[in-house]
Amino acid sequence: MSAPLPTGSTIGILGGGQLGRMLSVAASRLGLRCHVFEPGANPPAGQVAHAVTTAAYEDAAALDAFARSVDVITYEFENIPTAALDLLEGLRPIRPGREALRISQDRLTEKSFLRDLGLQTAPFAAVDSAEDLSRALDQIGAPAILKTRRFGYDGKGQARLSAPGDAAEALAALQGAPAILEGFVDFSCEISVIAARGLDGRVAAFDPGQNVHRDGILRTTTVPAAVPNRVLTDAVLTAGRILNALDYVGVLGVEFFVSPGGLIVNEIAPRVHNSGHWTQNGCLIDQFEQHIRAVAGWPLGDGKRHADIRMENLIGDDMDRVPGLSADPRCALHLYGKSEVKAGRKMGHANFLTPAASG
Amino acid sequence: MSAPLPTGSTIGILGGGQLGRMLSVAASRLGLRCHVFEPGANPPAGQVAHAVTTAAYEDAAALDAFARSVDVITYEFENIPTAALDLLEGLRPIRPGREALRISQDRLTEKSFLRDLGLQTAPFAAVDSAEDLSRALDQIGAPAILKTRRFGYDGKGQARLSAPGDAAEALAALQGAPAILEGFVDFSCEISVIAARGLDGRVAAFDPGQNVHRDGILRTTTVPAAVPNRVLTDAVLTAGRILNALDYVGVLGVEFFVSPGGLIVNEIAPRVHNSGHWTQNGCLIDQFEQHIRAVAGWPLGDGKRHADIRMENLIGDDMDRVPGLSADPRCALHLYGKSEVKAGRKMGHANFLTPAASG
Repeated sequence: MSAPLPTGSTIGILGGGQLGRMLSVAASRLGLRCHVFEPGANPPAGQVAHAVTTAAYEDAAALDAFARSVDVITYEFENIPTAALDLLEGLRPIRPGREALRISQDRLTEKSFLRDLGLQTAPFAAVDSAEDLSRALDQIGAPAILKTRRFGYDGKGQARLSAPGDAAEALAALQGAPAILEGFVDFSCEISVIAARGLDGRVAAFDPGQNVHRDGILRTTTVPAAVPNRVLTDAVLTAGRILNALDYVGVLGVEFFVSPGGLIVNEIAPRVHNSGHWTQNGCLIDQFEQHIRAVAGWPLGDGKRHADIRMENLIGDDMDRVPGLSADPRCALHLYGKSEVKAGRKMGHANFLTPAASG
Repeated sequence: MSAPLPTGSTIGILGGGQLGRMLSVAASRLGLRCHVFEPGANPPAGQVAHAVTTAAYEDAAALDAFARSVDVITYEFENIPTAALDLLEGLRPIRPGREALRISQDRLTEKSFLRDLGLQTAPFAAVDSAEDLSRALDQIGAPAILKTRRFGYDGKGQARLSAPGDAAEALAALQGAPAILEGFVDFSCEISVIAARGLDGRVAAFDPGQNVHRDGILRTTTVPAAVPNRVLTDAVLTAGRILNALDYVGVLGVEFFVSPGGLIVNEIAPRVHNSGHWTQNGCLIDQFEQHIRAVAGWPLGDGKRHADIRMENLIGDDMDRVPGLSADPRCALHLYGKSEVKAGRKMGHANFLTPAASG
């Protein structure tokens, strides 16, 4: 085990979006600096990070210089090209490690990993051809959803099959990408756990939040979740099993369906997670600082929640609501500094303090 | 009254120390950018601000370019040279305004302003010569404290007179600077109010904190303060009177002595204040965001406190305590990213959640 990084050290962050931005802010609280690596121009994280490299993940010289300028490397998204990771890993520690990335980059690998841990998942089958899809539909039934194995997010790279007759169209929509067919599960709601594991192997979790999606994008997370306490405990313990199985270092997001037959793991994200944004106004140490603490080898915060909160994403034209929200005494705004508003684009989020349920 | 600055606007901050750093972070939460102007190299705020100008306050071209790159100008310290302010004011609004700076830059002007408002201050008299000092001592008595009228902070620029015989030595220590003699007052404790006034004239205040100084430097602030509620109310109302009298926009810190004869105003600071750092972990909107909201013309947060907190400054070698503090589940660390530890230098602070008093 390495010693904690001293203040003044530099965290390298792959990806300069809002998650990288909020990680940079959290690192600054601990006297740590951030160097963001991002191919796109003017990344949101660049407005608050100490340094920014604008270069492609194929630019070996830029990756090399980036790695040598930092003490440890983390990331805000999981779809980093393998060759870039190979290069970086030879120079500096990458946390969370390669195994978590390998598993979460591929929906089939991820589902297999979860099943092998003894956890429940939606029924699934690999689909590389029309024959595979036909066989998978026989096995899983319709409705079902065909997803690319890699590079999907926020509902992208997915096609819904209402009936077996939709197979050809769904397959065409994915343009030949390796895919996975997932069956629907009967669930009452979705919850997620934001958990962390330190370099010393200790685990801490925030209270599970209850999520509502629309059009494949998270809209709200509410804590506490309106599900029985034993279900919440089970979710936290399950997240802990996943963290330990991966020998994980950092924050991990785990999404669950709450079903009559118990918790079904929907997916895992090896990073800070949109459904953990409520922690910024509900906990002494938020998910961003928790992640920085873990990757820097610092002790974890304990994750205790001090408020009931509803987090609401501000997407596209929701930005028009900002003047009103800024006048709401129970609302904390978190805006990402993106200059262009686009439909479906996450522009910020609002954390609303909600009256605590009577104890 | 101007409209609120839209997200994407830039706040100019004069001064790049820890206050500028925490202001920059708060601005980023609202999707605003910060441009820091600071004569010293590698300022703490530079690690998180969108842009930094390193130039002297006498550099008119740099001031001009800085002002033209921002939408509004604020500051993290009050001792900004008048000529620089004159230049900047012609280009962009300065908030809080010139009157607050004029008054708080000079201890004599400040005390006179407070007295003219009908508020209690320590007895004081202007001292420009040995004869003035002799007359002031006759009037105020010893012990007393001789302070430079301008440019004092953290106990610097002060000489204590235990007896009238110390006069010559005290005067020599101040090297001929215009001074003020202040009498000691009988007080049980010091409290401070961090209050804010918006561009629309609305006022909000955080709960008063109780302060402990050592060697002229703030060591701890504790909320709630252990003084009767009517005293706290009086302190908040007094801060409101000062804000209104100055037609103030932004956060103001007001220090009070709690004396048997009522509240005595010790000093005012036209900026975010060390004794308001507890708000980062005790309120939905902290003093830094409150200040940014005010100078950007946004609605103020309401200042409600959700936790009992003891803020402790980390000064010089206190940095050795960081590993231990980082493992304390009730402690939130805020480190300033200063590379060099010096005796008496503020390196960071820690906010400790303390068990709430029974209600």
